[in-house]
Amino acid sequence: MTKAQIIQEIVEATGIDKPDVQNTVEAFVSTLKGFMIDGKNVFIRGFGSFVVRKRAKKVARNISKNQEIIIPEHFYPTFKPAKSFAERVKMNNKVKK
Amino acid sequence: MTKAQIIQEIVEATGIDKPDVQNTVEAFVSTLKGFMIDGKNVFIRGFGSFVVRKRAKKVARNISKNQEIIIPEHFYPTFKPAKSFAERVKMNNKVKK
Repeated sequence: MTKAQIIQEIVEATGIDKPDVQNTVEAFVSTLKGFMIDGKNVFIRGFGSFVVRKRAKKVARNISKNQEIIIPEHFYPTFKPAKSFAERVKMNNKVKK
Repeated sequence: MTKAQIIQEIVEATGIDKPDVQNTVEAFVSTLKGFMIDGKNVFIRGFGSFVVRKRAKKVARNISKNQEIIIPEHFYPTFKPAKSFAERVKMNNKVKK
């Protein structure tokens, strides 16, 4: 699914004008991004938390070139789903035996 | 930051009526959740991909009770940030030496 499909669903569900829905969704995504670029975390109740985390230094290897690549410690945007949301995804999507 | 603060930013940036912004943001979050509960992935260009992933079976241990806890294979909602977005978070949040 894409953002365009979500926008279409919202227009049909709410009856709000499509340009307003489009502008709001664009603004929502860019505001969320902007907060995280500024190093801030965003908590959305019932959905989850967007958290800027520090990733530890990692040594990778390019086997074919026999080279070591050092990825230094850096910050990275992550998402941790709300417990209630993760539970519903789990319950509704059963692993086939 | 919270959803309420994002909504306030959007109202100020777009001039769209607050109730419409609130309803659109609520609908956006619940549509995104609904897709993932249905096992569908959602791709948002420039932000990232929300992907329903299978988590492998895991054996945990309660040391104090000397008990093994088996967490069976299950599905879980995850988020993988777009490369351009992760890059901006990295560049703008330097690790202190």
